[in-house]
Amino acid sequence: MRLSKFFLPILKESPREAEIVSHRLMTRAGMIKQQSAGIYSWLPLGKIALDKICDIVREEQNRAGAVEILMPTIQSAELWRESGRYDDYGKEMLRIEDRMEREMLFGPTNEEMVTDIFRSYVKSYKDLPLNLYHIQWKFRDERRPRFGVMRGREFLMKDAYSFDLDYEASKAAYNRMFVSYLRTFDRCGLKSIPMRADTGPIGGNLSHEFIILAETGESEVFCHRDFERFDVPPADVDYQDDAVMASIVEKWTTPFAATDEIMEKEEWAQDAWKALGDDTKVSARGIEVGHIFHFGTKYSEPMGAAVQGPDGKQHFVSMGSYGIGPSRLLAAIIEASHDEAGIIWPESVAPFQVGLINMKPGDAACDAACEKIETALSNAGIDFLHDDRDERAGVKFATADLIGLPWQVIAGPRAVAEGNVEIKNRKTGERETLTIEAAINRFAA
Amino acid sequence: MRLSKFFLPILKESPREAEIVSHRLMTRAGMIKQQSAGIYSWLPLGKIALDKICDIVREEQNRAGAVEILMPTIQSAELWRESGRYDDYGKEMLRIEDRMEREMLFGPTNEEMVTDIFRSYVKSYKDLPLNLYHIQWKFRDERRPRFGVMRGREFLMKDAYSFDLDYEASKAAYNRMFVSYLRTFDRCGLKSIPMRADTGPIGGNLSHEFIILAETGESEVFCHRDFERFDVPPADVDYQDDAVMASIVEKWTTPFAATDEIMEKEEWAQDAWKALGDDTKVSARGIEVGHIFHFGTKYSEPMGAAVQGPDGKQHFVSMGSYGIGPSRLLAAIIEASHDEAGIIWPESVAPFQVGLINMKPGDAACDAACEKIETALSNAGIDFLHDDRDERAGVKFATADLIGLPWQVIAGPRAVAEGNVEIKNRKTGERETLTIEAAINRFAA
Repeated sequence: MRLSKFFLPILKESPREAEIVSHRLMTRAGMIKQQSAGIYSWLPLGKIALDKICDIVREEQNRAGAVEILMPTIQSAELWRESGRYDDYGKEMLRIEDRMEREMLFGPTNEEMVTDIFRSYVKSYKDLPLNLYHIQWKFRDERRPRFGVMRGREFLMKDAYSFDLDYEASKAAYNRMFVSYLRTFDRCGLKSIPMRADTGPIGGNLSHEFIILAETGESEVFCHRDFERFDVPPADVDYQDDAVMASIVEKWTTPFAATDEIMEKEEWAQDAWKALGDDTKVSARGIEVGHIFHFGTKYSEPMGAAVQGPDGKQHFVSMGSYGIGPSRLLAAIIEASHDEAGIIWPESVAPFQVGLINMKPGDAACDAACEKIETALSNAGIDFLHDDRDERAGVKFATADLIGLPWQVIAGPRAVAEGNVEIKNRKTGERETLTIEAAINRFAA
Repeated sequence: MRLSKFFLPILKESPREAEIVSHRLMTRAGMIKQQSAGIYSWLPLGKIALDKICDIVREEQNRAGAVEILMPTIQSAELWRESGRYDDYGKEMLRIEDRMEREMLFGPTNEEMVTDIFRSYVKSYKDLPLNLYHIQWKFRDERRPRFGVMRGREFLMKDAYSFDLDYEASKAAYNRMFVSYLRTFDRCGLKSIPMRADTGPIGGNLSHEFIILAETGESEVFCHRDFERFDVPPADVDYQDDAVMASIVEKWTTPFAATDEIMEKEEWAQDAWKALGDDTKVSARGIEVGHIFHFGTKYSEPMGAAVQGPDGKQHFVSMGSYGIGPSRLLAAIIEASHDEAGIIWPESVAPFQVGLINMKPGDAACDAACEKIETALSNAGIDFLHDDRDERAGVKFATADLIGLPWQVIAGPRAVAEGNVEIKNRKTGERETLTIEAAINRFAA
C-alpha cells in the first residue's frame, strides 16, 4: 500500500480526554476517531490491525473445535425475559422500541440467543459436544465510557458458547477454551495469566479472567513467579484429548494468582500471598482481555434446551461462555508494547510488516529503489506501507515510529547512490545498512 | 471440515412464512435462522458464504482504490440534524435513547458520519481523490420485513463514499465504482445490468441501480439485447485512466434499460421501449443488488466539508455513495441459481468447493478412501465438507444437493473396492467414475 493512496490522518496532539497511552497513540496514529461517547470509527490502520487480531482469535477458536456463526446485534426483549435477565440487567443494556412498539435491545452478550438457536435444532446427545462462537459488535451503555476502545460502549466481542450433556463434558469444553485463550494471547505477543474470577451477571460457579501484563495496566495483579517460565501449548496440542487439556489447565491454575479485586475481599487470597516467599512473588500491572464462564444449566433449564441422552431421558445441557474483546485486546497490546515515540507492534498483529520510507520522492534513484523493493515485497506477499509522500525526513521518521511497524526500510539519496538502504528495527532501534538486494532478501526471501 | 464437527441443521420443511425460493432454501439448508421479524442469525454454512461474498466485494473495492474503514452501528441524532435528514427519515430509522437521554439511532446509512470523518482530517485538494468504504450491519425498520435476508431489517451493507474537488473528478470516482460493481457481480456469477434510477432519500442527480437477472426476481426489467454480449472489464482494467472508465460507463449506459418502476412513471421510457425492434427487446425478472449515487455537495455544504483548492480557495467537496448489500446479494445469487433439489453455488461464492460423501462410514475401505481424499484436499487448500455422518445414502445425497456445493465426490463401498469414486457436478448433474487418484488430481492438482 502506498501512503499517498491510503488514509492515515496522523495527529500532532493527543486528544485532551485521552487518559491512557493506548487511547492517545491510537488517536494520534489515525487508527480511531471518536464519534460519540464510547463509540468509535475504525480508520484504515486501526481496521487492519483489528482484522489481524480477529484472524488470530478465529484461527484459535476453530483449532479448538468451535464453529463460527453470526448472530444479529438487535435482540428481542422476550428472549431475555425467558432467562429472567431482562429485568436484572440494569441501565447498561441499551433498550429499544421498534416501530411496532416491540421491546428490543442491542445485545450486550448472547447467552439467550445462542441457547434459542441450540434448542431449535439440537435434540440428541449424539450432536454434542457443540461450541458456537461469533465475532460481533456489542453495546453496553456504560455510565462513564473512557479509555478509548478499552472501555467503549460499542465494542467488538468474540463470544463462544459450549453445549454438553453433563458437567464432566462441559468442564472438558471449558478446558479447551482455556487452552485456546492461552494460545490466542501468546500469538498476539502477550503474556497472559489466568485468574479465578467472579462470574457477575453471566452467572455460574467457575470462571477465569485472562490478565495480560502491561506496565500501564488498569489494575494490580499478584502472582507466583512460576508463570514466567510456563510454556504456552503448541499449535498441535491435542484438543481432542481431555486428559491433556485438564493437565494444562491444572498446571496454569495451581500457582497463586489474583487480581486486586480478589485480594481486597478474599482473606484466603491475602493469606496465600503472605505465605509466598519474597523470591517467588510477582506484583505487576495487568489488563483483563478474556473471561470464561462455566454456568451449567443456568440458561438451558429456564429456556428448555434439553437433549435426549444415551439413557433415553431428556437432559438440560450444561453450558459455558467464553469472551474475548478484540477491540479491547488491540488497546491492551499497545499498553503492553509502546515507547515514547509510539506503538511497537508485535509482528503477528502489525497492520503492515514493513514501512518503506522514500526519503526523497522525485529523486529518480530513490524512486527506482523504492519501486524495486515494493515490487519484491508485493510478489512475496509481505504487507508494507510505502511512505511516498512529499514530506520532510523528520515527519516521515516520526510517522514511522508512531505507527510502529516492526521494520522500517529507509531509502535516502546518499545510501541509494551506493546501492544501499537502511533497515531499522522499531523495537530495538537497531539500524543496519544493507544493499537493496540484501534488504529485499531479508523480508521477501 | 467434517460434517460431524460442523453445525448444519438441515430442515425437511420450509418455513410457512417463506414466500421466495432463496428464503426457503437458506432456511432448509441451515444457513440462517430468524430471530425476530426481519432479523436473522447466520449459521455456519451461511456465514461462510457471506464471508466469501464480502471478500469479493472487498477485493474489488480495493482494486478500484477505495480504502476500508469501519464505522459504528450507533450514531448520534445530532449528526443527522446537521444534514437535515433526522426529521426527513421517517419510521424506517430505528431511533434510540441512551441512559443519558441522548438521542441516538442505528445507522441505516452513513453519509453524515463519513462526511464528519472527512471534515475532521482532510483540508487540502492534495489529499484527494478519497474513497472510504466499510462493510457493516445496518438497520432499516421496514414496516413489512419479508423475503428472508432479501429484505431484512438488520442487514449487511458495503457502503463507499467518494470525495473529490469538483464535479468532473467526482464523476470519475463514480465511474470507477460503476466499473467495480460490474466486476463484483460478475465474479459472483451474476449477469448485472445498470439502470438509471431514482435517488430517493440519499438525494442527488445521478444514480444507477445494478439489477441482476433471475427468473424468480422481484421486479420486471426491460432492456436491449446488447447487454447479453457485453464483456465485463478484466481484473487489470486501468482504474487510474479516467477516459477508459468513462468509455466503459458510456458503453454500459447507452442501450435501453429500465425497471418496471421507471416504465410505469416515465413516458420517455415507454416510448423508447416501444421504439425498439422486437428482436432487440429483452424483458426479464430482476433483483436490485447495488445502487450508486452522485449527489455533489448535498452533505458537504451543510456539514462544512471543504478543502483548499489549487486556487487557494475553499471548495465544498463533491461526493457520491455506493452501496451493495452482501446479505441481500447472497439471496439474489440463490434466486439466480437453484433447482428443485436446492442451491447451485457458483464456484466463486460456494461455502465449500467439494462435498465429500462417505457412503458407508465404519467401512474400512470407504473411511480410508475418504481420509486420503480429505488429506489431499486439505494440503491443496481446497475447501471441502466431508459428510462422515452415520446416515442413509438418500439423506446424504439430498443434503448434498440442497446445500449445493459445486462438486460432490461420492465414496461408496462398491466403487471404492475397485479403487474408484464417483464425481458429480451439481449444476449439470453429470456423474463420472474416476480412480481415487484421478479424483484427487481433478481438484488438488
